[in-house]
Amino acid sequence: MNGAESLLRSLTASGVTVCFGNPGTSEMHFVSALDSVSEMRCILGLHENVITGAADGYARMSGKPACTLLHLGPGLSNGLANLHNARRASSPIVNIVGDHALSHTGIDAPLASDIVSIARPVSNWVYTSTSARNVGADAARAVQAANAAPGNIATLILPADTAWSDADDVANPLPFASPVDVAQCTIERVAVQLRHALSPAILLRGDVLRDEGLIHAGQIAKHTGARLLCDTFAPRLQRGAGRVVVERLPYFAEQVLESLQGVDLLVLVGAKPPVSFFAYPDKPGWLTPKGCTLSVLSHPHENGRSALSSLVEALGAAKDSPTVTKLNVSAFSRAGALDACSVIQAVARHMPENAILVDESVSSGFPHYGITATAVPHDYLNLTGGAIGSMMAVSIGAAVVCPDRKIITLVGDGSAMYTLQSLWTQAREKLDVTTVILANRGYKVLHNELIRVGAAQEGIKAHSMIELTNPNIDWVSLAHGMGVEAVRVELHAGFEDAFLSAMRHPGPRLIEAVIS
Amino acid sequence: MNGAESLLRSLTASGVTVCFGNPGTSEMHFVSALDSVSEMRCILGLHENVITGAADGYARMSGKPACTLLHLGPGLSNGLANLHNARRASSPIVNIVGDHALSHTGIDAPLASDIVSIARPVSNWVYTSTSARNVGADAARAVQAANAAPGNIATLILPADTAWSDADDVANPLPFASPVDVAQCTIERVAVQLRHALSPAILLRGDVLRDEGLIHAGQIAKHTGARLLCDTFAPRLQRGAGRVVVERLPYFAEQVLESLQGVDLLVLVGAKPPVSFFAYPDKPGWLTPKGCTLSVLSHPHENGRSALSSLVEALGAAKDSPTVTKLNVSAFSRAGALDACSVIQAVARHMPENAILVDESVSSGFPHYGITATAVPHDYLNLTGGAIGSMMAVSIGAAVVCPDRKIITLVGDGSAMYTLQSLWTQAREKLDVTTVILANRGYKVLHNELIRVGAAQEGIKAHSMIELTNPNIDWVSLAHGMGVEAVRVELHAGFEDAFLSAMRHPGPRLIEAVIS
Repeated sequence: MNGAESLLRSLTASGVTVCFGNPGTSEMHFVSALDSVSEMRCILGLHENVITGAADGYARMSGKPACTLLHLGPGLSNGLANLHNARRASSPIVNIVGDHALSHTGIDAPLASDIVSIARPVSNWVYTSTSARNVGADAARAVQAANAAPGNIATLILPADTAWSDADDVANPLPFASPVDVAQCTIERVAVQLRHALSPAILLRGDVLRDEGLIHAGQIAKHTGARLLCDTFAPRLQRGAGRVVVERLPYFAEQVLESLQGVDLLVLVGAKPPVSFFAYPDKPGWLTPKGCTLSVLSHPHENGRSALSSLVEALGAAKDSPTVTKLNVSAFSRAGALDACSVIQAVARHMPENAILVDESVSSGFPHYGITATAVPHDYLNLTGGAIGSMMAVSIGAAVVCPDRKIITLVGDGSAMYTLQSLWTQAREKLDVTTVILANRGYKVLHNELIRVGAAQEGIKAHSMIELTNPNIDWVSLAHGMGVEAVRVELHAGFEDAFLSAMRHPGPRLIEAVIS
Repeated sequence: MNGAESLLRSLTASGVTVCFGNPGTSEMHFVSALDSVSEMRCILGLHENVITGAADGYARMSGKPACTLLHLGPGLSNGLANLHNARRASSPIVNIVGDHALSHTGIDAPLASDIVSIARPVSNWVYTSTSARNVGADAARAVQAANAAPGNIATLILPADTAWSDADDVANPLPFASPVDVAQCTIERVAVQLRHALSPAILLRGDVLRDEGLIHAGQIAKHTGARLLCDTFAPRLQRGAGRVVVERLPYFAEQVLESLQGVDLLVLVGAKPPVSFFAYPDKPGWLTPKGCTLSVLSHPHENGRSALSSLVEALGAAKDSPTVTKLNVSAFSRAGALDACSVIQAVARHMPENAILVDESVSSGFPHYGITATAVPHDYLNLTGGAIGSMMAVSIGAAVVCPDRKIITLVGDGSAMYTLQSLWTQAREKLDVTTVILANRGYKVLHNELIRVGAAQEGIKAHSMIELTNPNIDWVSLAHGMGVEAVRVELHAGFEDAFLSAMRHPGPRLIEAVIS
């Protein structure tokens, strides 16, 4: 057994059974060993940001890490932006980054770079294997690091000779740091605070936004009158008809401040205090209102679910019935040209139960978040770190975990151009992903921002930097180029028909929704 | 005047007049100021690796830096791979990386990241502006750093408030470190060594591979019997009929060793000693033959051109006529299916004089390098750092510098998928770039590598990780999606016709050459 096989078998022994990768010469022994390790599924992406985004989506839906296979410093560099997003989502990921053989260091070959330094800003754990004898054990430690609550990015650098040299055996899985329970005194402190607050709110993030976490939060809200909130960019949220109602904090600072006005207690469950996404001249960044008490029920690495369960008990709220969402997919007219609102109305009306809605619709989506919130029950995944080009890739990972669920990706055209190679992997793996491109022919969010930052009147050159016109992008051709069926629609009726058709047929599809 | 305008005016005062960018919210004041600074041309790229690659191409053809405009850590991350290549090309580039306002630091907003650490592995100079009062001066220092010989990556981080706050004025350009002259004793040492060597060779890199550098090197070679060499991945080389003959070192280590066998003196002019691109089990990385004396005439930061001129004088070689390339575009049959050889034969036969050949043909191109070497005189630009996805972007920068020259990009399909967004910028800017996709439907270089590294027989899973099939990529559709005219050809006659047509018509074109 060589180091590559020891590494692969150690990964699968530790529960890592999917590899999203794009190999190069230095990873050839890893690739060669794949056929000896049947437990590892390997999925090719044609750009590394597709790979790291897919691993993020895999982690969000499975709760466990996939591994990536990346080619030296440049391969890792290409995937950094979606590792940034994954880090913000607390998604566990194990990166395997090939490197030159240790014998090759010090001669400054063209592909040599400082991989450790490139990895560090996005990684919670970085380690360079130094021998094929250790590489299995190093893999087990990487998985351990990735799995530590609330979920981490672990980057294992694999010099080529640690893959090709002789190895001894396979490493056993290591225990990892599960979320720790919150102290009872904290539960009681928060119970007292909730009882005495005039206008409390609870900000949730992480696995408390689904299953029993959500139900217990709903009971607490019902019992105490607290509002339930999630932040603008929660990694994953179960919502829709029958699910506990959670308000999403709006995007802009002044809207958040307005939304939180009068709140005198803000309980944090796995969430950090709300802050403004960007800074603006003379506007605040810290958004907890003056006079509001911040109270941490659980930190992200702590067990928020058991904390909420204990809090239900401490409050005597076990018999309270949470307020749940009522199905509301209002009728709409099929006449007229498309706009973002009518696209999202049609999605809400026709998405199947248990769909996974993957959202990077940015400016088109912000105002219409509520339209899908009252659709059939579904999972909602969001761009977490603000690095655009995330969610088409995330949808790959979600589809790999959940082959029986329909994935619907809403994405702006500017965002979609960043990782359009995602479509090819969707086609190759026959993933059941419907991509809706909200094609407004620009970075429309920046039109608003240009005004908001108080920048001067938009001139011709400024305009040219935020418009995706001249030429327009033809998304149908791009999808066809990647092997994905596609259609362009400009009218509401056309969109509804195309979307219905996509919902009825499995496999990847793309709809270019031309909106004003 | 705000900081953004001070920055822009200071950049143009220092000679930086082209900005390749993709802005976000934190860069809105920079964008807004563009219309007040008519000297700055601004070009939008739809992915940051297009932007950094374009800046690399601009630097290679102009010898001076463009600036990039990148959006925080993720925007910089997306462009890192081509900054790696640019660093290996010694291309001067000034990166302007927007960041959150200084007032926004410490609250860990979603897009916050450690930009300095992300920048450092690819940057020779990194600085964060701290005030709009300094930002113009900081820009002048960044340009100074970028221009220092042999050419550097300078990264200036621009917190949003240093752009929006009041500034005083525009910074004057700063003097920069030009290449220093080589000591006369070094010239004389090398002259003596060359006179006494039995089988000398001179390895050239940098600006000595063109104009008078090349002529002087040719005179020295003629006078001393030395071979003239360039490394496999020289950033830029003038070659073709009438140009001094320079042998390119081959790619694989054993080929380099064979090529250098018997060489007893290797003189380095702006080049480093040859090393193997990758490591292989039981093969050497250091490729200077045993018993060969290494002798540095000039380091990369030194003035190799004047050193060669002085060496001509010291040797008394001024009257020697260098050996120059004879035009040789051999006739070939138009019949039959395409292969890499026949594609490159047709390119050699029909490329116009003074074209710029931009090469990322990887495995398809290596064996056929010599075919274009004897075509009409042209510039030859190469992938320098091994990070694929470079040269379609480089061609943008080359076309911006040289609007009257035909740019021909040879690129493998695997490479082309990395920065296919380059086509959109080529269309928008109406650049005279003909892209030839050598579509062999795979990372074919890895087929060879799998065998070379001694990896086991390629299995089904291994195969799936290095093939671009299932589905095939349709490059004609992808080009159309980006607004670029395109055609697919599978026969030699068809390729020749398509290529001839592209040579006769200005503007961006793509030819998908399907090869076995």
